[in-house]
Amino acid sequence: MSLKATKILKHTPSVIASAAVGGKKEHEGPMGDYFDKINDDPYFSGDTFEQGECQLQKQSVLHTLNKAGLEATDIDVLFGGDLLNQCTGTTYGVRSFEMPFLGIYGACSTMAEGLLMSSLFVNAGYADKAMAVTSSHFCTAERQYRFPLNYGGQRTPTSQWTATAGGALVVSAKENPPYVRACTIGKIVDMGVTDANNMGAAMAPAAYSTIKEFFEDTGMSPEDFDFIVTGDLGKVGSRILCELFERDGINIRDRHKDCGLMLYSFDEQDVHAGGSGCGCAGSMLCGYFIPQLRAGAIRNILFAATGALLSPTVNQQGETIPSISHLVWLSHETADDLSDTNSAEKEN
Amino acid sequence: MSLKATKILKHTPSVIASAAVGGKKEHEGPMGDYFDKINDDPYFSGDTFEQGECQLQKQSVLHTLNKAGLEATDIDVLFGGDLLNQCTGTTYGVRSFEMPFLGIYGACSTMAEGLLMSSLFVNAGYADKAMAVTSSHFCTAERQYRFPLNYGGQRTPTSQWTATAGGALVVSAKENPPYVRACTIGKIVDMGVTDANNMGAAMAPAAYSTIKEFFEDTGMSPEDFDFIVTGDLGKVGSRILCELFERDGINIRDRHKDCGLMLYSFDEQDVHAGGSGCGCAGSMLCGYFIPQLRAGAIRNILFAATGALLSPTVNQQGETIPSISHLVWLSHETADDLSDTNSAEKEN
Repeated sequence: MSLKATKILKHTPSVIASAAVGGKKEHEGPMGDYFDKINDDPYFSGDTFEQGECQLQKQSVLHTLNKAGLEATDIDVLFGGDLLNQCTGTTYGVRSFEMPFLGIYGACSTMAEGLLMSSLFVNAGYADKAMAVTSSHFCTAERQYRFPLNYGGQRTPTSQWTATAGGALVVSAKENPPYVRACTIGKIVDMGVTDANNMGAAMAPAAYSTIKEFFEDTGMSPEDFDFIVTGDLGKVGSRILCELFERDGINIRDRHKDCGLMLYSFDEQDVHAGGSGCGCAGSMLCGYFIPQLRAGAIRNILFAATGALLSPTVNQQGETIPSISHLVWLSHETADDLSDTNSAEKEN
Repeated sequence: MSLKATKILKHTPSVIASAAVGGKKEHEGPMGDYFDKINDDPYFSGDTFEQGECQLQKQSVLHTLNKAGLEATDIDVLFGGDLLNQCTGTTYGVRSFEMPFLGIYGACSTMAEGLLMSSLFVNAGYADKAMAVTSSHFCTAERQYRFPLNYGGQRTPTSQWTATAGGALVVSAKENPPYVRACTIGKIVDMGVTDANNMGAAMAPAAYSTIKEFFEDTGMSPEDFDFIVTGDLGKVGSRILCELFERDGINIRDRHKDCGLMLYSFDEQDVHAGGSGCGCAGSMLCGYFIPQLRAGAIRNILFAATGALLSPTVNQQGETIPSISHLVWLSHETADDLSDTNSAEKEN
């Protein structure tokens, strides 16, 4: 019999700093003021879009370190990943920092996976300061996953717009809010969707699976949270997620927020079903939700980013799209009132 | 001031089972008898090479579960990754198991990263049973990183042969040998090598950095180990690694083993500088070293697999090749005689 997938973090580590970096379109959207830095140039003064994406990672790390008052040498472990083949946005973006580095791959769920890992490492004493970083870039993703930009291909109504954005955060021992209270490691879910232009539909069942597992493991309910935040389900996936819970008699609609629905203006920015990419959830968590939780304007959220674990190669071979969602409970409050019986951790 | 990159595992978890799966060429090599299963068909009865690679992962997991007497539902967390774009060898290979899954990316260092993560999770009580899996496939790697097979391109003398192989293992609480005594999280090292057909030279400095850090953090020396095992440095990288240590007055040459030099016969199998790929180190660890450690024929090894963190895209853009190496100390002995002062872990 296996342990619960939900780990209660009895030392409730703090997210002591975070930063979000974006591009021009992200700046023009309704959340534009929440970015720490904006780059109007998609090349970020480099020669290629890939070099631009590396800069998103580098800038996210540097702004976060700066806000935390830390040097790169203070970081015990960095968790990072992105959508580019072989995660080169991360590896080339962070190589100059010479931090102990553990590469992760979770597609657009990467920020949730990185926060989960960072929190577990700090909670266990493996790290005093753990960092997570991720990014995505419209121009690198578009040509890698779909078509060269110059081709000018038409986008389907269910397609989403990959955010040019990055986010980073530092987790440390319990200090000030927000605190990481628990996390749920997701399982791969594949409901048979094959349309790579409808990622929301492919990913919604993964979010449903993980959020439901969290509720079952903890006995908590949507009413315990201000917001249940998903990463980039967009219009289609968000509707599916709410409907899946409704079939169980659980209403999450009133508290559901999707970063892909927040980042852009649907009336003015022509993003079809919404934003997507690792940087979408990454920047909204690091730029908006964490500061709001710190200030107490928001008290409790579940952050459940989702990733579609496909590649163009296997998708073109006719494969369906497996997805995953990892979840983290972030809170303005500590866990002093938390029952020990919930603890999935052994006493060490 | 950050913690040491080396974590001493005070609960010394056990690797309770492991299995290696290989292809025809791996079977014909000098280590052919150490595989649990051999597949002569590179398609593994599937339609594509990618489906074949998925089977490597699936078979590795199934054989390991079988040897451990466990079901998929007994596994609390699975760490997996591979070289394919978006790690689809893993995600498609393991999706049917429905295990809590954390994707990792470390290129050919993946088995070391997975073993490290699994051991840290068990040591902290986050998992009772943690599993790691990886694979590589000559035919998927060759067309993704180099040329279509049908092109018949010539290989340079420094090039290596990607192993068609997979490996998986299960880590559990201290039980029988081998025990995981410590691990060192690597840093990204980039010494400016740009030749994607000379991965050994690119990766050797990363292995040097991590192994050196382990010796410095623990005060141990090469004489404390039967073997210092690297993943796939091949002829060129192995020579560089030994020379780097010789400059420091440290002789590792007598105890150094490279999985890439073990897997194939240089006289008969035309593999140029040696074997490579996640499955090279993965299968040699899971098929050879772990059983030898269990039996006591080998008492102590450092397993330091290396990964080259490049993609063809950025390499063709003229970029150098950053690399990383993660290290795990595996022992036939428990840590009962271990001084607490070495512990990099906080008391919880």
